[in-house]
Amino acid sequence: MEILHITSRRDPRVKSAAALRDSPVQRRKDGLFLCEGARLCEDAARSGVKIRACFFTRKAQEKYGRYLEEIGRVSPEGYLVEEPVAKLISSTKNYQGVFCLCESPQMPGSSSEERPLRKSSCVVLENLQDPGNLGGVLRTAEALGVEQIFLLGDCCDPFSPKALRSSMGAAFRLELRRAEDAGALCKGLKKEGFALLAAVPDHTAKKITELPLSARLCAVFIGNEGNGLEKETISLCGERVTIPMPGRAESLNALAAATILIWEMQRKEGKADEGF
Amino acid sequence: MEILHITSRRDPRVKSAAALRDSPVQRRKDGLFLCEGARLCEDAARSGVKIRACFFTRKAQEKYGRYLEEIGRVSPEGYLVEEPVAKLISSTKNYQGVFCLCESPQMPGSSSEERPLRKSSCVVLENLQDPGNLGGVLRTAEALGVEQIFLLGDCCDPFSPKALRSSMGAAFRLELRRAEDAGALCKGLKKEGFALLAAVPDHTAKKITELPLSARLCAVFIGNEGNGLEKETISLCGERVTIPMPGRAESLNALAAATILIWEMQRKEGKADEGF
Repeated sequence: MEILHITSRRDPRVKSAAALRDSPVQRRKDGLFLCEGARLCEDAARSGVKIRACFFTRKAQEKYGRYLEEIGRVSPEGYLVEEPVAKLISSTKNYQGVFCLCESPQMPGSSSEERPLRKSSCVVLENLQDPGNLGGVLRTAEALGVEQIFLLGDCCDPFSPKALRSSMGAAFRLELRRAEDAGALCKGLKKEGFALLAAVPDHTAKKITELPLSARLCAVFIGNEGNGLEKETISLCGERVTIPMPGRAESLNALAAATILIWEMQRKEGKADEGF
Repeated sequence: MEILHITSRRDPRVKSAAALRDSPVQRRKDGLFLCEGARLCEDAARSGVKIRACFFTRKAQEKYGRYLEEIGRVSPEGYLVEEPVAKLISSTKNYQGVFCLCESPQMPGSSSEERPLRKSSCVVLENLQDPGNLGGVLRTAEALGVEQIFLLGDCCDPFSPKALRSSMGAAFRLELRRAEDAGALCKGLKKEGFALLAAVPDHTAKKITELPLSARLCAVFIGNEGNGLEKETISLCGERVTIPMPGRAESLNALAAATILIWEMQRKEGKADEGF
């Protein structure tokens, strides 16, 4: 890694890093994102994310040398930056002073012609808007052994600073796929043998505790924080499932609800040999 | 409800509301807290929380009249405030302009002499530090039918603005109890027949999927976000339980982990008649 020194906050590379942090449009346009934090940058390096450059402070060099070494092996350029520069590009108050400029991993579409679908139960997130929720769901999915996630409709960017932080790097390791069209996605999944389950807060739907979720190849569809799934998506799925709540109904937040759905999909019969 | 008009941001009632919003010390000292939002204030009124006064803007009067009517029935005083005052006491950017000054509900200690323990499975949270997590766990607990929560050690304040928002009012309806001393709490719970389960991220502990959690009277102990439970608390519990993760181990966030534990405690055999 070649190391250059950046002292000015007006340096174009600094400005561009700050723009990538703030703007989903910029990230899409450039095909790049900014990753912050020693552990998260190391995760990116280990997961095969293409790193273009690493920014770090002198303090970070002392404190996170072990991480920077690993990052340095795959980053062609390194920028030693002054504290005010680090402060400018950080999205947290207590920054560690380690940042990577990364190429956004390619997110294939939902068609199996584009890339064969994995034949294991998966999650479809539709219009999920909060980056903390999206990141949290990715983290949970990874922990519980889900490998493939579809982002349907207008989901927030999984490579925004907050989503990355909440996902603890899960976004680098999961197979994330974009799906513009619910119809095409559902058709493709059905063709491959997936049972499509629309999660709805409605006590007339089938209780997830009554379904042998883990015995089937499932795709669980989870909707927007406030409005749930689109009506059309629900009818495309065919099967409606709900989380029984003996206490106060309709009162789980998006992450808690997704966690229970993923857990039920992954936990049951015959999985003892897979870690359950 | 008598209605007075407050125009100045320097009005002592405004200053005191802002102090209650920001300072746990002030809340403890005065035995009061500030509740924000039409729905949450209505929840407080409905749950029997003692409301001392309600602050609202003219806009809120038009938009949230139905809520203010219900709040007005139990609030002795109402303050019509100008927008800059509402902006000052709000803890959100897009404020609704409805606030209540409330008396903090009494939180009994953990001893059954002080108040008899409820004989249903419960949750003990130790040193939980993030108000969003605490609120989220309370909300999940309520949704899944847990009635009694113990806050052990140095937990954050369940009546801070962020915890209240995340709990969606669950803090008003659950039986919350303070527990200073893990020894006394564990002794009391054991005496009443509770099985004490310490949740640990350790694959040598008993998997929760192998335990008939819901068939027993349980108290699940959940620890701090970064450090887990205190060693002493774990050894006082006796039984250690863990969430099996076939994917990436030790990678659930606090809310996701608590959700799975509470779900497993509440969901199983023989609960079909209770809504599962």
